[in-house]
Amino acid sequence: MEHTYAVIMAGGGGTRLWPISRKETPKQLLPLLGKETLFQSTFARLEKIFPPERILVVTVLEQARVMQEQVPAIPKENYLIEPAPRGTASVVALAAAVLEKRDPQAMMAIQTADHHIRNQDLFQYLLRAAFDVAHKEYLVTLGITPTFPSTGYGYIQQGEPLEGDYKYPVYTVKRFKEKPDEATAQQLLRSGDHSWNSGMFIWRVDSILTEIKRQMPELYNATRQIAEAWGLPEGGDILRAKWTELKTETIDYGIMEKAERVAVLPAGGLGWSDVGSWDSLFEVLLPDMNGNVSVNSQHLSVDSHNTLVYSVNEQRLVVTIGMDDFVVVDAGDVLMVCKTDQSQKVKNVVEHLKKHNQEKFL
Amino acid sequence: MEHTYAVIMAGGGGTRLWPISRKETPKQLLPLLGKETLFQSTFARLEKIFPPERILVVTVLEQARVMQEQVPAIPKENYLIEPAPRGTASVVALAAAVLEKRDPQAMMAIQTADHHIRNQDLFQYLLRAAFDVAHKEYLVTLGITPTFPSTGYGYIQQGEPLEGDYKYPVYTVKRFKEKPDEATAQQLLRSGDHSWNSGMFIWRVDSILTEIKRQMPELYNATRQIAEAWGLPEGGDILRAKWTELKTETIDYGIMEKAERVAVLPAGGLGWSDVGSWDSLFEVLLPDMNGNVSVNSQHLSVDSHNTLVYSVNEQRLVVTIGMDDFVVVDAGDVLMVCKTDQSQKVKNVVEHLKKHNQEKFL
Repeated sequence: MEHTYAVIMAGGGGTRLWPISRKETPKQLLPLLGKETLFQSTFARLEKIFPPERILVVTVLEQARVMQEQVPAIPKENYLIEPAPRGTASVVALAAAVLEKRDPQAMMAIQTADHHIRNQDLFQYLLRAAFDVAHKEYLVTLGITPTFPSTGYGYIQQGEPLEGDYKYPVYTVKRFKEKPDEATAQQLLRSGDHSWNSGMFIWRVDSILTEIKRQMPELYNATRQIAEAWGLPEGGDILRAKWTELKTETIDYGIMEKAERVAVLPAGGLGWSDVGSWDSLFEVLLPDMNGNVSVNSQHLSVDSHNTLVYSVNEQRLVVTIGMDDFVVVDAGDVLMVCKTDQSQKVKNVVEHLKKHNQEKFL
Repeated sequence: MEHTYAVIMAGGGGTRLWPISRKETPKQLLPLLGKETLFQSTFARLEKIFPPERILVVTVLEQARVMQEQVPAIPKENYLIEPAPRGTASVVALAAAVLEKRDPQAMMAIQTADHHIRNQDLFQYLLRAAFDVAHKEYLVTLGITPTFPSTGYGYIQQGEPLEGDYKYPVYTVKRFKEKPDEATAQQLLRSGDHSWNSGMFIWRVDSILTEIKRQMPELYNATRQIAEAWGLPEGGDILRAKWTELKTETIDYGIMEKAERVAVLPAGGLGWSDVGSWDSLFEVLLPDMNGNVSVNSQHLSVDSHNTLVYSVNEQRLVVTIGMDDFVVVDAGDVLMVCKTDQSQKVKNVVEHLKKHNQEKFL
């Protein structure tokens, strides 16, 4: 597929996988699933479609260094460094502006570095299908068919089927919805016309830039100037100056909610997860016959079931006796044992530690 | 109390508190209850009755070094070093023979280094009462009134009350019984005339030596020769030569079961525990309002109850979320999480590791 590019966003840290995910070691750079890091798996998944020269990464400087070690195949000039976090709208605008300068016919697939997709063949099929739709000047999003009433994801309500001959069912988008409460999530699940918002977007660079220019003209102008100077001696100064003045905004709220010509491909069976909590990490791993999963650890189980043991130290022996439905995390300086269905309480612990200035554990 | 001595037996290792109790660091030398080691608490308890010069320790060389650091008050010459483990009968015979040479009128209280007693005043009262009985040439044992149908302790059946004016009820001993099965333990608990065998014995040195001479004449002769040479230049050689020829025997089976003039003081309310497993350690510790206990560790509990956290590293943070009735043990190279009522399965783990030559974890 000529003129197609992948743009991997790898900005944030995230505390929901604390104590493994830390300020210094964000989720996407960790071997959460065993040997590969989530960033490495993301690259491996995209490499089947895009040559490394057409895979871009938008991230901060500290992470870029580790990413270049983890995936040497991506050329250094494909790293777009954010001087500071300014939200996904800014990231998308920067990538689009830089790409447009390189290839005016460019189409891009926005991907996140820290998600997991089990069914890679289907993913690749869907991405090709999405590019076909995007080619017709749609802003395309991959929706995920919900499998439970999640309150952790935003939702996309689909409208009418798009007319035309596409490889996969595609619909107009009626509405983007913020993370719902429990009762609303139950309704959305039953409705049958709602997908989870995966944060994966596919569009032509000119299509998205037109929308950005219309809805966020300041952002458009700033990233355009940054892109003009990209690679020139004064490029770094202009980037820093313009970027820090940007207001922080998400692509969903800043652009997508009011955009025209938005389409969704509702994907079932993709085995997608944002790996946003210990229980969701657990779900994407293959357990043994007792339901136990051991990642990077020596685990000796006695009458234990459905227990995830995650360690940063393979030399250490982890013994569980009579445990059912637990997550055991050995992060070196912190040890956490958590009933799996209570793993959302990890954020309470992080808040508590912040409040009491326990920076060393954050 | 003139002529009274305490003899602390500190031989074995014990694997029931694995992974904290290890070959190199046996239970009695560990700060299981917080700051003090069990050996230090044993000494503190006995020091109220015996001056340090009248407290003897029988142990192996490696442990003696650590014990002298932990309790410098006991004179070095009061350490009787076993060249190799030969059972408690041998230990008692050696201590009795050595003591008789120092003080022919000596009376001795046999104690173990690794038990816990909550009610120290009562303990001291009982010990004094026991010496009064022992003075009348009885072999006295402190029985523990059972509080549950334990299958982990041996039992002592009491007979008739002893005639005489004693400070505490005392009975003849009808029978010593080995560790029972569950159904038998239930019966023994209901019977009302059975005590647990605590391994605490009180007697005159001449009384016990008479019994040893009668029932185990070889042991008697060997320890007598060892005692004769004690402190002389050839003492060490004679000890090693005679000791290694001894057969391994317990004082219960070798002497007590067939001894004459055996008496028992059935002690209720002593708060005695052999601290022989993680759940029994848990029982002797004072929990917080959620039932949690934290020993040597930084524990952050979120909706956790009745959970013991024991660590060898106070720098490490231990977080528990949604845990009920667990023991969490951080032993450095081994991490164990165990449902409290399954803590007897620790021995299965130890056996498994032995079988698979994982010596470093034993």
